[in-house]
Amino acid sequence: MPQPGTPAFVAAVESALTTFFLTRREIVERLGPVFVEAVDALELFVLRGGKRTRPAFAWTGWLGAGGASDGLEATAVLTVCSALELVQACALVHDDIIDSSHTRRRFPTVHVDFEQRHHKLGWTGDSAHFGAGVAILIGDLALAWADDMVQASGLDPAAIARFAPVWACMRTEVLGGQLLDIHGEAGADESVAAALRINRYKTAAYTVERPLHLGAAIADADQGLVEAYRTFGTDIGIAFQLRDDLLGVFGDPAVTGKPSGDDLREGKRTVLLAEALARADATDPAAGELLRTSIGTDLNADDVQRLRAVLTELGAVDKVERRIAELTESGLAAIETSTATPAAKERLRAMALAATKRAA
Amino acid sequence: MPQPGTPAFVAAVESALTTFFLTRREIVERLGPVFVEAVDALELFVLRGGKRTRPAFAWTGWLGAGGASDGLEATAVLTVCSALELVQACALVHDDIIDSSHTRRRFPTVHVDFEQRHHKLGWTGDSAHFGAGVAILIGDLALAWADDMVQASGLDPAAIARFAPVWACMRTEVLGGQLLDIHGEAGADESVAAALRINRYKTAAYTVERPLHLGAAIADADQGLVEAYRTFGTDIGIAFQLRDDLLGVFGDPAVTGKPSGDDLREGKRTVLLAEALARADATDPAAGELLRTSIGTDLNADDVQRLRAVLTELGAVDKVERRIAELTESGLAAIETSTATPAAKERLRAMALAATKRAA
Repeated sequence: MPQPGTPAFVAAVESALTTFFLTRREIVERLGPVFVEAVDALELFVLRGGKRTRPAFAWTGWLGAGGASDGLEATAVLTVCSALELVQACALVHDDIIDSSHTRRRFPTVHVDFEQRHHKLGWTGDSAHFGAGVAILIGDLALAWADDMVQASGLDPAAIARFAPVWACMRTEVLGGQLLDIHGEAGADESVAAALRINRYKTAAYTVERPLHLGAAIADADQGLVEAYRTFGTDIGIAFQLRDDLLGVFGDPAVTGKPSGDDLREGKRTVLLAEALARADATDPAAGELLRTSIGTDLNADDVQRLRAVLTELGAVDKVERRIAELTESGLAAIETSTATPAAKERLRAMALAATKRAA
Repeated sequence: MPQPGTPAFVAAVESALTTFFLTRREIVERLGPVFVEAVDALELFVLRGGKRTRPAFAWTGWLGAGGASDGLEATAVLTVCSALELVQACALVHDDIIDSSHTRRRFPTVHVDFEQRHHKLGWTGDSAHFGAGVAILIGDLALAWADDMVQASGLDPAAIARFAPVWACMRTEVLGGQLLDIHGEAGADESVAAALRINRYKTAAYTVERPLHLGAAIADADQGLVEAYRTFGTDIGIAFQLRDDLLGVFGDPAVTGKPSGDDLREGKRTVLLAEALARADATDPAAGELLRTSIGTDLNADDVQRLRAVLTELGAVDKVERRIAELTESGLAAIETSTATPAAKERLRAMALAATKRAA
């Protein structure tokens, strides 16, 4: 089996997913062409791209705990790691409904896709409502199939039972994190603690901590390594999201591929913003007023420039950069002193730096 | 453990669900009060009523295959059977968004509940969109937790692995059935075959066939009994839905608790309607035109009366009654000649008659 971080690893994950979809073919066809069409849309969505980050962390967790990289068991473990992409498909498809997003990876989102099909065929009822309904069900299917893929992976039932509590935590945490997120956007709580908590559960636990933990649990790793993975995962995962927040405001559109200051226009409730608001409330109420009335509105380039200056002058940017540096350091330290294999340590170092020092 | 069909059985299912929610308390509280509130809403929804039909069929399937009614294993099996109520919670919560339903069991639906909370607190953004977002995530959580409840049931991992393919079919079928249903409502296909297929997967497989099959798979029943259960489940499940369709048009509001002719007003694409349309197209185009232009509109009592007469005169009502009688007979015959225990046979007979001959 290939090493994480290589194109061959991405191909192996996609091959495991393709094989799983093939095994569903019979039951899907039994339900008729309408269902076939919906499942085809899900398969296309899952295979159309993505960095396969969660499978990569899970696979690294397994290898780093001494798990075999080849053989029957390794194949089953890679299938379990790949099933994380189906949980992710549910999260993205449902998130896109919740955020009213129109495109993802340059294609129409699933609900918009089915809205357009409904409209083109001149069917009865509201096209947008139909599209959302189909996308809710396609997301549900992805979530259910993630479990089915684990069960059908060929992994020993005892190993499945061993990692089930980790799998359970991961899904509960990401769903809880998403719920906190939409409450945050509704303005329920604009504290730094609330924003950090969303990062922790929606991103860090779901993307890094629990995938590593999953790999460790399958390998039946000792508690010390599990703790090291979890510290690394929480710290690096939060740092990753903080970098993302900075890029969402200060990133170069030519590199990020997103319009400059997009997060400000969308009114995203980031730690950066929470930090700025807390500082403004303490020292500069006018800056706080400006932030609260501007964020989430249709800003032009000058507005974005002004808000960037405010965020910088309040010291929020420095504070977030410091936090990223501290978290990266503590995350890396946890791994260095752990019993993970040397190859896994090297891989995790590279992944940590890629996640926290990137420009896009 | 109590016998299905008794109030003690309903209480035992609810107790298993309450215990499961208790075991999630720690992780839920770690995510904070916003998540606690959402999970409380889900727990209330799950425990607020329902006939626990799916657990009853699953438990009957287990007992009928010779499974023990008491002891540690029986307790674990009852927990697995009860987890079906979490799958059902997801189906209902998401269905209510898709159908834009405002109430369920006389309480606001989950999305309406959270829409109202958002509105009352004067939060930012569209209240209805917020409510739908929360309800999508609460439904996802219920679906994920159904699996977690199975994994945490205490059942032997080998038994879990044995019934996993049945569990997988059940969820795929119900989601596929719901998808066919919303395509049917959009007018994609108004044939009798399409309506019957929706009944088969959305109702029969999900409510009767697969729960019985699940119980049998846990008990490692022989193939003959599995086939008998599945025939019974498919036939009685479809007959149940056909009876429901008739009651939705001809039912006595004093008994059903729903306004008379409600299904006609909602434009539900039933087998009854498909049968009537097929007959009208062959013999009475004017009746077809009347049905197509009236169904799904704001009908008064006279309109309802007229449509009932049309459905009856076209012979659609007789045809559906005949189909119910035939399916009930074939379903019961499959059970009679099976190796199910005498007590299970008696129970299934009673359940079949209750499902197909009821007035509400």
